[in-house]
Amino acid sequence: MNAMTANEDLLKFEIPEVVFGRGALGQIGDCAGRLGGERVLLVTDPGVAAAGWVDEAIGHLRDAGLDWAVFDNVVTNPRDFQVEQGIQLYRRKRCDVIVAVGGGSPIDTAKGIAILASNHGAIHEYEGCNLVTQPIPPLVCAPTTAGTGADVSQFSIIADTRRKVKMTLLSRAIMPDVSLIDPRLLTTLSLEMIAATGMDALTHAVEAYVSSLAWPMTDPHALHAIELVGRHLREAARAKSPAALDGMFIACLEAGIAFSNAILGAIHALAHPLGALYDIHHGVANAVLLPAVVRKNMGYALSRFADIAHALSPETRGRGVRAAAEAVPEMLDALIADIGLPSRLSELGVDPADIPALAEMAQVDPCMLTNPYCYSKAEIESMYRDAL
Amino acid sequence: MNAMTANEDLLKFEIPEVVFGRGALGQIGDCAGRLGGERVLLVTDPGVAAAGWVDEAIGHLRDAGLDWAVFDNVVTNPRDFQVEQGIQLYRRKRCDVIVAVGGGSPIDTAKGIAILASNHGAIHEYEGCNLVTQPIPPLVCAPTTAGTGADVSQFSIIADTRRKVKMTLLSRAIMPDVSLIDPRLLTTLSLEMIAATGMDALTHAVEAYVSSLAWPMTDPHALHAIELVGRHLREAARAKSPAALDGMFIACLEAGIAFSNAILGAIHALAHPLGALYDIHHGVANAVLLPAVVRKNMGYALSRFADIAHALSPETRGRGVRAAAEAVPEMLDALIADIGLPSRLSELGVDPADIPALAEMAQVDPCMLTNPYCYSKAEIESMYRDAL
Repeated sequence: MNAMTANEDLLKFEIPEVVFGRGALGQIGDCAGRLGGERVLLVTDPGVAAAGWVDEAIGHLRDAGLDWAVFDNVVTNPRDFQVEQGIQLYRRKRCDVIVAVGGGSPIDTAKGIAILASNHGAIHEYEGCNLVTQPIPPLVCAPTTAGTGADVSQFSIIADTRRKVKMTLLSRAIMPDVSLIDPRLLTTLSLEMIAATGMDALTHAVEAYVSSLAWPMTDPHALHAIELVGRHLREAARAKSPAALDGMFIACLEAGIAFSNAILGAIHALAHPLGALYDIHHGVANAVLLPAVVRKNMGYALSRFADIAHALSPETRGRGVRAAAEAVPEMLDALIADIGLPSRLSELGVDPADIPALAEMAQVDPCMLTNPYCYSKAEIESMYRDAL
Repeated sequence: MNAMTANEDLLKFEIPEVVFGRGALGQIGDCAGRLGGERVLLVTDPGVAAAGWVDEAIGHLRDAGLDWAVFDNVVTNPRDFQVEQGIQLYRRKRCDVIVAVGGGSPIDTAKGIAILASNHGAIHEYEGCNLVTQPIPPLVCAPTTAGTGADVSQFSIIADTRRKVKMTLLSRAIMPDVSLIDPRLLTTLSLEMIAATGMDALTHAVEAYVSSLAWPMTDPHALHAIELVGRHLREAARAKSPAALDGMFIACLEAGIAFSNAILGAIHALAHPLGALYDIHHGVANAVLLPAVVRKNMGYALSRFADIAHALSPETRGRGVRAAAEAVPEMLDALIADIGLPSRLSELGVDPADIPALAEMAQVDPCMLTNPYCYSKAEIESMYRDAL
């Protein structure tokens, strides 16, 4: 499958306009205005509001002469009914531009609202690849976590609460217009969230680098993101030092650019059902699954995993391809332990009896299509068990 | 100076949507249509038309149900009056979208026409940074040379025929919407043009990598472009083998992404007056100046030039920083000789008596602002003399 274009021989590379630096949030009003907006729906969550970033953003919207309405009924693993509530507010307030200030959940919710603003129907109708055909309203994002990459991607993940599955909506039409990446916004995040979202960024980069759609335009970003995570995540999750947070925000950006254009793989396919069934944080789910899936994937992309080893740790450069690749799962185990994340699914309350149901969902997740190997249901079950 | 944003602490990264692969030109009609166009101005030049690509492009426009008019009065180092002729045709035919099929000259001309389509006045009024304030009509490019990067950049270079200078127009508003990079289009280029345009791409990457605006989002693209030129340009300019042409097109793309966001330096500042005064091909002018300017620039960015050495030739990795950096000019001399380009300005008819006038123009070229060192007029004259 080539999810990106109608023609299977063509490769795509698309990202939003990116503004990076302290004070980038200050451009949110000007961006919304120059994209033609007058009435803004600001999508966020209560934690971001409590940290003060919503008030700051509203000040910038006011300075730009814009009206606004705030929608903050968003939780981690955002739900279909929250998208419905958001579009009702968008329509009631006659909004014409959407800004999202938050992590992956507010940004994915904002994308869902944007889809319904110009495509009508229910959000469930857009699950899958390239089903969003009408352009969405202008969308400006200011991420508050260094993990999601949703601010530069054409993905939105929304929970279907009736079927209890996470829907993957993947359409070039839902790429945001601008991402304002302001490292100040990371300073109010908890150390636990820096660790969890950082592992999400690492997983994006690893999966994009071994994806069957990886190409020379995505590879340098994926490898550089892995290198930056190896250099900065421990320090960011220990002390939130400014240089480490800057490094993690760039890692997240580059990982987002890589996966939006090369798509993902089995780790995300196995992680999505954990979010749907147990409401486990997406970054934590990825972290727990990452070493187990890498151990299985390695044989199908050995030299690529050797490159990943070199990026994570320059000392592996002297080793042969197989020895370097085989060092990756242990480096990941050590990183996860150092940043204090759980390493087993059983710690997260996963019931072994649910594994067949989890595997059934994982097998049909669109992310599985670009994994270097196509696993059977039995093989997927065994990966879940390896991570138990 | 930070040419990219109003706020000096912010870094920008912006590129068009990119579609890469054999057959990418086939999307030109669909792209123009989905961007809202109905009547297309197709900007090209007689050489591209003779190679058959204009007929193919027109077929795709027709298949997409679009009307079109062709403007092909474009020469190398395109002129202000050609932009005027183009905008007259655009208005007479009531066009609403522009597509450019060609090298840097048709693309830069298309950008000039696009500026006047929505900003009015004369093209000379937009010389400089961020003077284009109104959004341009949709612009889709299909490059036919692996050098310019104009298809992914916010630059347009237009000759002011009265003052005999090349004007640099640098505005985020003139970034194309889509670049369709189709390696088939390189196959009809002469070997000489592959060599000359390839050196333009290399110069973009080198200047972006040592620019004062380089940052972690531009660096991986600049270095990867240099690596690809080192690996593929000799073979591309000798035999046009498909793998080498693919590699050079990706090098050109990545170099374009890097320089559009990190801007350029002294080589381009010195090359532009050569185009204005002698109508020397831009890629040839860059090639002749590159080793001479690198020799002067090196001391101001030694470790960066060592990275460039490693990218051009992995064998330099064992050497110390200074030794690696100092190997760069000789590697460039050897590459230029191998691909059969001239290496001295005197071969191109440059009169030593013109050097003071050339240096005066070069000193005020906007590209000089991001060079690692700010040269006096006397130093610029001495670089021209070094390349005589």
